[in-house]
Amino acid sequence: MKKSALQRVRSEYQPKLPKALQGTVKIKIGPATESVADQEEIKKLFPHTYGLPIVEFEVSKEPETVEAPFNVGVILSGGQAPGGHNVISGLFDGLKRLNKENRLYGFLMGPSGFINHEYMELTADYIKDYRNTGGFDIIGSGRTKLETPEQFESGLKILKELNIKALVIIGGDDSNTNAAVLAEYYKNIGAGVQVIGVPKTIDGDLKNQWIETSFGFDTACKVYSEVIGNIQRDCNSAKKYYHFVKLMGRSASHIALECALETQPNVCLISEEVLAKKMTLDEIVNYLCFVISERAKKGWNFGTVLIPEGLVEFIPSMKDLISELNDVLAVKAEELEGLQPHEKLDKIEKMLTPSNAALYKSLPRHIARQLSLDRDSHGNVQVSLIETESLLSEMVSKRLSEMKDAGEYSGKFSAQHHFFGYEGRCADPTNFDADYTYALGMNAAMLINSGLTGYMSSVRNLTEKSEDWIAGGIPITMMMNMEKRHGHMKPVIQKALVNLDGRPYQKFASQRDTWAMETCYLYPGPIQYFGPAEVCDRPSMTLLLEHDKDA
Amino acid sequence: MKKSALQRVRSEYQPKLPKALQGTVKIKIGPATESVADQEEIKKLFPHTYGLPIVEFEVSKEPETVEAPFNVGVILSGGQAPGGHNVISGLFDGLKRLNKENRLYGFLMGPSGFINHEYMELTADYIKDYRNTGGFDIIGSGRTKLETPEQFESGLKILKELNIKALVIIGGDDSNTNAAVLAEYYKNIGAGVQVIGVPKTIDGDLKNQWIETSFGFDTACKVYSEVIGNIQRDCNSAKKYYHFVKLMGRSASHIALECALETQPNVCLISEEVLAKKMTLDEIVNYLCFVISERAKKGWNFGTVLIPEGLVEFIPSMKDLISELNDVLAVKAEELEGLQPHEKLDKIEKMLTPSNAALYKSLPRHIARQLSLDRDSHGNVQVSLIETESLLSEMVSKRLSEMKDAGEYSGKFSAQHHFFGYEGRCADPTNFDADYTYALGMNAAMLINSGLTGYMSSVRNLTEKSEDWIAGGIPITMMMNMEKRHGHMKPVIQKALVNLDGRPYQKFASQRDTWAMETCYLYPGPIQYFGPAEVCDRPSMTLLLEHDKDA
Repeated sequence: MKKSALQRVRSEYQPKLPKALQGTVKIKIGPATESVADQEEIKKLFPHTYGLPIVEFEVSKEPETVEAPFNVGVILSGGQAPGGHNVISGLFDGLKRLNKENRLYGFLMGPSGFINHEYMELTADYIKDYRNTGGFDIIGSGRTKLETPEQFESGLKILKELNIKALVIIGGDDSNTNAAVLAEYYKNIGAGVQVIGVPKTIDGDLKNQWIETSFGFDTACKVYSEVIGNIQRDCNSAKKYYHFVKLMGRSASHIALECALETQPNVCLISEEVLAKKMTLDEIVNYLCFVISERAKKGWNFGTVLIPEGLVEFIPSMKDLISELNDVLAVKAEELEGLQPHEKLDKIEKMLTPSNAALYKSLPRHIARQLSLDRDSHGNVQVSLIETESLLSEMVSKRLSEMKDAGEYSGKFSAQHHFFGYEGRCADPTNFDADYTYALGMNAAMLINSGLTGYMSSVRNLTEKSEDWIAGGIPITMMMNMEKRHGHMKPVIQKALVNLDGRPYQKFASQRDTWAMETCYLYPGPIQYFGPAEVCDRPSMTLLLEHDKDA
Repeated sequence: MKKSALQRVRSEYQPKLPKALQGTVKIKIGPATESVADQEEIKKLFPHTYGLPIVEFEVSKEPETVEAPFNVGVILSGGQAPGGHNVISGLFDGLKRLNKENRLYGFLMGPSGFINHEYMELTADYIKDYRNTGGFDIIGSGRTKLETPEQFESGLKILKELNIKALVIIGGDDSNTNAAVLAEYYKNIGAGVQVIGVPKTIDGDLKNQWIETSFGFDTACKVYSEVIGNIQRDCNSAKKYYHFVKLMGRSASHIALECALETQPNVCLISEEVLAKKMTLDEIVNYLCFVISERAKKGWNFGTVLIPEGLVEFIPSMKDLISELNDVLAVKAEELEGLQPHEKLDKIEKMLTPSNAALYKSLPRHIARQLSLDRDSHGNVQVSLIETESLLSEMVSKRLSEMKDAGEYSGKFSAQHHFFGYEGRCADPTNFDADYTYALGMNAAMLINSGLTGYMSSVRNLTEKSEDWIAGGIPITMMMNMEKRHGHMKPVIQKALVNLDGRPYQKFASQRDTWAMETCYLYPGPIQYFGPAEVCDRPSMTLLLEHDKDA
């Protein structure tokens, strides 16, 4: 494998471990736990894995003993996140420390590799090339949902064939929910296979009291903040554009919020706030126009606006419109067939209830077209394809023209659009994520060796030095509640949305008016690996603020 | 000014200087020069500044003497490029070294600040915050062309008012051409004002035997390569998308070529090659489809394609079409008025000559619409707005469907689009660009102090250690020839296109088939400032290869 100069040097980096994981570990078992809500229902669904204790590892004074050898399988599930390769490296090193005979198998391209028996053995030589690198290309990832007994049984066959005693699933909230279901299933049938989850997602929505952050969030946000900072420098140099920047985060706005704290843009929209205040699309547009026209009064016809990818689905009126569109387009499909696009749009408008028709009419034509014509395989509007950044900038442009005609605005408005997603999901992990993921992997090996199942690998106290991090395991059922998904009540891990009472949002909210009216851009620059600790090792501002640190 | 952690640390960086510029300098005057072509015409146009000698600075053994104080003005012209702030810092430090009483004035928002007398004095305290940072926000930039005697006279007034004896213009080929014209003008009227140019452009098309690279190219390419590398990791992890990445570079493909050398994508299109081979749009699409279908045979339905921004204008048949569209739309404006967009497109097609009509019809509808409907203020097609990345991917998608029907292809094709420009133009300069620009600025001060005018600041031997760099000045007229611009023959600095016989292109061409059929992605990672020299100080591969170094 030909490598870049940075790849070559960076491959030598030895991730820093918590003290407890540096040698032989001793397990400390806490009291039994309860799920965060719906205790009775969760308990009924997980009779064998409910109520397990939180465990913590401590430095052991005992001499290292060689355990009987065992094999482990690992799956990367869902979207890429920086650090996945280090989870696997840490897991591998942990297994080898326990017994040199231990083997690690990787299932290829996500859960489907497990179900279809596509796998490879991960050797020291093979893993070497992937240490401290981004991406999930070491074994690939995939989005197949691991949730049916048929899948569990099919997977069990290959586990037995390879003599695997534990499966590690690296994934987001859904994958970890499924890991818990699988753990319960194997426990119930006495399969003799443990299941351990590892918290991954750059969206940052898998976190709670015990999982302080999911891995990859830190790195991805730093990449996005780097390019946002660069764009802001350009914006402040040329002084002639408004840059509308859409960022990943469909179900939560943690990324947008973190990037805002890192870069201090003129505007950052937070989906959770839009929902809480029941804001309409018009109100959002008006807020943007207010900021733009106030800046124009100072002669500033430039600025930056950060937008979370999922915004549209958090605007109650847009959600209503999309829902009615889904119905109308299904029911009236025949009437609409064969029409020219522009005729179709006019006809659809007439089919909608008056309030939705008005909103539909107010949208830029190409967005209305996108909503009506580009459907997924179930015939539904593809919300993820909506170009929210141009939706907003075009509506702002139109509104500003009206304001100009009314004598309320006399600036110039010209917009540039950006969407950052793939740019950050596979970046080489920051020192923080490299250390954190390596520890999560090593810790998973220790959880397996302790005979546990249905646990999530947990490394906490992350705002302190890595040697003081606390390593252990949290019963996944403890993080669950019952939620409606696709019409059915299901046990799931609670998604962590941006908490409007939390310090990260509060800090943002307390400063945003200044950022809007002044030009306070910060330029974080690229991720650094070799410089002073305050540049290289600082965790995300979200994490610092959530843990009462200065940021 | 609130700063990020990296900004704080990086502001302390002391750029490395060539030996010759570290103390008192001695000037070495070379033989008289000739322009690269059209000597007689250029000589006639520049009677006072033609034929000047190349000069070089050497270490002087003389003790430092304090010269009589003088004032200097500086202008940032055109698009942002990383390192502009260090040119100004180097210029400032050079002036202060010559005499603490020297003053530096910055004209605001580009040449217009010079013409309209908008300026500020640049003090040590003010400059401090901008050292080693990207952007042109220290005084702003602008695109006003400085080319008429009225502008020269208006500028002269403020120069006299501020007692400025030399003007430094930091810009691209056009701005440096204009600097030469201004130098000649002031010399001719005996204004007593020297003019010095500094070679800036991230596009990399201002370079020749004496100017090895324009500043900013190194940094911008490294930022683009970072995100392209990240996207390639993602591509190779998810294995389900083709990423079409458009990169800056309208008139030359140096950026695309450099990024290809840094990241080894599956395909990189080079405009200069397309022109040389007179390739049609269809041939380009067929080449892409060939690569995609061959990869599909291996089960690989993913890949990356780099596209230079200016590609469309290098395809002879597209150029013809655009030219005829410009005519037709001007002449037949009345006939087209009031028509619905789709009617208009149909009508335009009938107005074109058969070959252009066929090409027009083959384009995706939204591209045809863009070509026909979005016009600039002169009524011309706005080539820069054409979404070449989606033009290509849509035509590829269509062609692949046809191939599928014909049994020639059986893969899956799904595309993602990216365009990187603003992300890199204002990044913090790499060590290379930080050192290079600081030297260029310091060097400009020495050229001024030597009484020269009509020179470009030149720092050469850039692939060696910075202490061995050669500093001096090149008469701008020496780089000129006559070219047709807007219908008139004008003296201009020759633009450097990608040389198809040069080592950078040759290296690319010799490897691209392997890159296309295999998966050889490189992941350069983010720019590093503090690590080992091979990671932090390496110049661009283009520069290394052009100077017969390994890369």
